[in-house]
Amino acid sequence: MGVDEGERVKVSHGEKSSVALVNTSPDGLSAGQVLLSSRIADDLGVDDGADVDVSYHPPPLSVQAIRSAVHGKPLTKDMCYAIVGDVVAGRLSEAEMAAFVVSQAYRDVSMDEVENMARAMADSGQKLTFERTVYDKHSVGGVPGNKVSLLIVPIVAAAGLLIPKTSSRSITSPSGTADTMEVLAPVDLDPAEFRRAALKAGGAIVWGGRLGLAPADDILIRKVEHPLSLDPVSQLLASVMSKKLAVGANYLVVDLPVGVGTKLETEDMVRDIAAKFIELGRRLGVYVTCGLTYGSQPVGHAVGPALEAREALEALSGRGPRSLFEKSTALAGLLLEASGLAARGMGKAMAEKILESGKALRKMREVIEAQGGNPNVRPKDIQIGAHWAKTESPADGYVVEVNNSAINAVAKAAGAPLDKGAGVLLKAKVGYSVKKGDPLLEVYSEHESKLSEALDLVQRLKPMTVEGMLLRRLPEAF
Amino acid sequence: MGVDEGERVKVSHGEKSSVALVNTSPDGLSAGQVLLSSRIADDLGVDDGADVDVSYHPPPLSVQAIRSAVHGKPLTKDMCYAIVGDVVAGRLSEAEMAAFVVSQAYRDVSMDEVENMARAMADSGQKLTFERTVYDKHSVGGVPGNKVSLLIVPIVAAAGLLIPKTSSRSITSPSGTADTMEVLAPVDLDPAEFRRAALKAGGAIVWGGRLGLAPADDILIRKVEHPLSLDPVSQLLASVMSKKLAVGANYLVVDLPVGVGTKLETEDMVRDIAAKFIELGRRLGVYVTCGLTYGSQPVGHAVGPALEAREALEALSGRGPRSLFEKSTALAGLLLEASGLAARGMGKAMAEKILESGKALRKMREVIEAQGGNPNVRPKDIQIGAHWAKTESPADGYVVEVNNSAINAVAKAAGAPLDKGAGVLLKAKVGYSVKKGDPLLEVYSEHESKLSEALDLVQRLKPMTVEGMLLRRLPEAF
Repeated sequence: MGVDEGERVKVSHGEKSSVALVNTSPDGLSAGQVLLSSRIADDLGVDDGADVDVSYHPPPLSVQAIRSAVHGKPLTKDMCYAIVGDVVAGRLSEAEMAAFVVSQAYRDVSMDEVENMARAMADSGQKLTFERTVYDKHSVGGVPGNKVSLLIVPIVAAAGLLIPKTSSRSITSPSGTADTMEVLAPVDLDPAEFRRAALKAGGAIVWGGRLGLAPADDILIRKVEHPLSLDPVSQLLASVMSKKLAVGANYLVVDLPVGVGTKLETEDMVRDIAAKFIELGRRLGVYVTCGLTYGSQPVGHAVGPALEAREALEALSGRGPRSLFEKSTALAGLLLEASGLAARGMGKAMAEKILESGKALRKMREVIEAQGGNPNVRPKDIQIGAHWAKTESPADGYVVEVNNSAINAVAKAAGAPLDKGAGVLLKAKVGYSVKKGDPLLEVYSEHESKLSEALDLVQRLKPMTVEGMLLRRLPEAF
Repeated sequence: MGVDEGERVKVSHGEKSSVALVNTSPDGLSAGQVLLSSRIADDLGVDDGADVDVSYHPPPLSVQAIRSAVHGKPLTKDMCYAIVGDVVAGRLSEAEMAAFVVSQAYRDVSMDEVENMARAMADSGQKLTFERTVYDKHSVGGVPGNKVSLLIVPIVAAAGLLIPKTSSRSITSPSGTADTMEVLAPVDLDPAEFRRAALKAGGAIVWGGRLGLAPADDILIRKVEHPLSLDPVSQLLASVMSKKLAVGANYLVVDLPVGVGTKLETEDMVRDIAAKFIELGRRLGVYVTCGLTYGSQPVGHAVGPALEAREALEALSGRGPRSLFEKSTALAGLLLEASGLAARGMGKAMAEKILESGKALRKMREVIEAQGGNPNVRPKDIQIGAHWAKTESPADGYVVEVNNSAINAVAKAAGAPLDKGAGVLLKAKVGYSVKKGDPLLEVYSEHESKLSEALDLVQRLKPMTVEGMLLRRLPEAF
């Protein structure tokens, strides 16, 4: 037929037909035979041995669009919808999806295209309506221990605003917000449950995975962006905003951590992306405020689902680390200002007051209860991994660096995020003065073997640098 | 385990282990179960139900290299070898291979990298040695009917030089050189057969597919470049030169067709690629001469395997079209000059003399015989599709355009290249004066149904434009 691997054919049986990608691996097939995927066999309603017709099918609009993008040409609105639709329907090969994402990383993608892509992604899935003004928050990733949503949501909800927050599970980090919240309450709510819980408590923190919001995005992240460690700015913008469109967000604060080891390493990058978030929000009817935050070391001291949930609960009780308190109230303050409840410049003070008054903690207990968790949970009830060890400072001096990616790697080796109790507790951070033998890190795990793997990594990666310590001895063996 | 789709795990059983790409489709699996590909099951020697250990495996160097290239960084020699090795071993996902090729299209790839990639690709497969000086020829694709190899090989061999030419089957065109040659003789020779045939006749034209030369290249073309219609210049250079390194070519002429509808649309593009071919040849020890040729319409009149083979045989007998004669002798002349047999500027005249004397035809019969074909084949013995129709000029005037891609599409619709007898015969070319009703094209097919599909395409695509003819009427229906 002159059709090669990766091209498409139409497979027909009676009245029914379906379009299939061609794979020419010859295992066990003889001339005149085809092997259909179970999806296509189901579409056609055929069993083993049935006769089907196979004919050439030209590349769909989505593939023409990807080829065009790969050659540097802009995507029209129809093309954006075609790509997104075919991603969701599973009609694109992995190679086609990868080519699309890589081209987005290289091409100069216009705001028109990002807007069309965000709309196409939002329209490809479920949409929720709350019939009230919706506030929302998003953190661009990369900083370990960034559990600020667990403070921002109850602060904002305690002010009487509605903040139904959807979150991801971890893709590359030791704990996504959904993983952390799951320590306190169920997060895998369906759309109706999510809506009910959010309206009841005024806020919610759930996993986006069961809501079916902008599913194209999740597929591209899993199949391409994560395996290739690639996150083009245009896709990041469209991705975040499509999720926000899908929940009908009116006001959004975006947390942009800048620093070594984050996605945004320089302030120029972060200013550029902030301008794009704001412009895209304007086009889509979402009022966006960006908060640039310090991202060169973990937020607070805890990294890993249970450790982070415990630290968030302590912070809501007024006993948390200063960096977590400051960052959470600053970002919550931006939403309070956007709402008009606080005057410009006064949002943070209002957020601090809500937190210090205990209202945010009470609101968090309502949120936990509405999602089906135990509202009376105390920090000491949260189970931390039983196997643990501490590492000590090898010298006197100041801590001059905490390496985000090394902390992530150690926490993951210890078992996070799947083992909720696994993770790392930082006993010192940048600027701390330490003496030889003082604790630097505590590593927790649910399994002895994973603890020892994590400790090996600490030796190799040295996640914390004390000025004056020996970084390496050469030759290494003696 | 915290391992997601597209990441790698090490699967072990007893002493044996193998690295596998993770696919998280849950069909029929429960927790603690894994489904292994048959390749990995064979590697490990395990049957259904056996116990295996699964642990995280970090991304191999090839994947780190691809990520690095995607982020715009240059590839080292080790990285080139790692990518090529893992492509050949089937250790890269389609998404990874696509990301690699797309990045090569966007990145400014240095000549050092192209050289390393060409060497890595050549070293990844079979290498042949002929123990004589080897002459070779390559045409950059895109022009229909480009059967010049069937003239150049016998001309050059008749001059006493060795020209063992490997060719591809069609990927996107109605006939690759291997498809056309196969009408006259077997082309799927193994390395030993190829070597014997080439040394016996002084030349050969075989399919590269059974020789195992630079296999990485074929995999990337099939899996990525063809499905995505993408052919980055750096990959094209490395690809061509790796095949030439693998046959030990010393002198190479590269045919660079320039024109509308070819890969090289402007003379700037063609000059740039010519300079790169020459420089790359210098680095690799291959003396390269480039011939820029006219590519805006088909070469000769015939498009499709049997029609082209017949036209080549007629041209060797002195009865072929002028454009084919001119182009073939010009390119053959460049090799004769490179060899020193002809003085500079005298190669074409020497090639013409060899062709006109009948020596090239006699040599072609030796080549056909050495490959196992019938040396006495005559043009009229070649079977052309029994179903045919002609299209007529709709107006008096000059032919002002022949559209390459439309001609390709019509010939493919008629059944080429798999139906050897299918194709198109151009009864007029650019500059011909035609009268209303004069024939423009003859379309041949082995099947009535394909003929009618091809004729439908002629109506839609209008492959030939006669100045003054009505191109379209609006509205189209009435």
